[in-house]
Amino acid sequence: MTHTLQTYHIGLVVGDLDKAVETYRTRFGAVELAREQLPAQEVEACMLDMRGSLVELIAPTTVESGVRKFLGKRGEGFHHVAYLVDDILGELQRLKESGTKLVDETPRRGFGGHQVAFIHPDSAHGVLIELVEE
Amino acid sequence: MTHTLQTYHIGLVVGDLDKAVETYRTRFGAVELAREQLPAQEVEACMLDMRGSLVELIAPTTVESGVRKFLGKRGEGFHHVAYLVDDILGELQRLKESGTKLVDETPRRGFGGHQVAFIHPDSAHGVLIELVEE
Repeated sequence: MTHTLQTYHIGLVVGDLDKAVETYRTRFGAVELAREQLPAQEVEACMLDMRGSLVELIAPTTVESGVRKFLGKRGEGFHHVAYLVDDILGELQRLKESGTKLVDETPRRGFGGHQVAFIHPDSAHGVLIELVEE
Repeated sequence: MTHTLQTYHIGLVVGDLDKAVETYRTRFGAVELAREQLPAQEVEACMLDMRGSLVELIAPTTVESGVRKFLGKRGEGFHHVAYLVDDILGELQRLKESGTKLVDETPRRGFGGHQVAFIHPDSAHGVLIELVEE
């Protein structure tokens, strides 16, 4: 993946999306860019612009949501970091061949309709990494 | 803080710095920029460049290190996100006046000799935020 990664956003899990957006707006000067329901993941997400840096706030929309379980176990906080890639299929293939544990062997639809895939935290020192192809 | 924040790096706690640097280098194409002991925090830190994005890997150097306790409690993973500010004293004053809970009311020396100060996760939905003035 040398020379093909670029930080895209950090993803933060919150309990109340409106309240968290308000905190980031008033306290840290963030601007709301887009808000979206992701029914497959049972979450609602909001992308914020913090002066050119993207922060994705994610809140569960169902009690069965994996993000609800995350909240119950770890509380609000960091969920993932997303990197932009040019060729997500190529990256996944290369990572798989290098023995990297993948959550998604094939891309799925993520925020904004982008193709996304997650790398398992076991292969990245406890960090959930999302690859995004715009 | 409107229009004064800019993402500087994400900080990740790891158990073995050399091993983690090697993972990031071989698997994700990161380049090691600098490595530094921070005796006051009882950690060694390594700044990586992932194609223009900075990732700071942090490992404890003593058994009493707060980062060692973090590892014992949460395991390897996200520790903080750092934002660049122009005027750290002004930001801290403004945040304090807005009722934000601060870890550091006055800046201290961080990686690279920069002035840094942390905002308490209680005031940022579970996220430890570092302000950095270069």
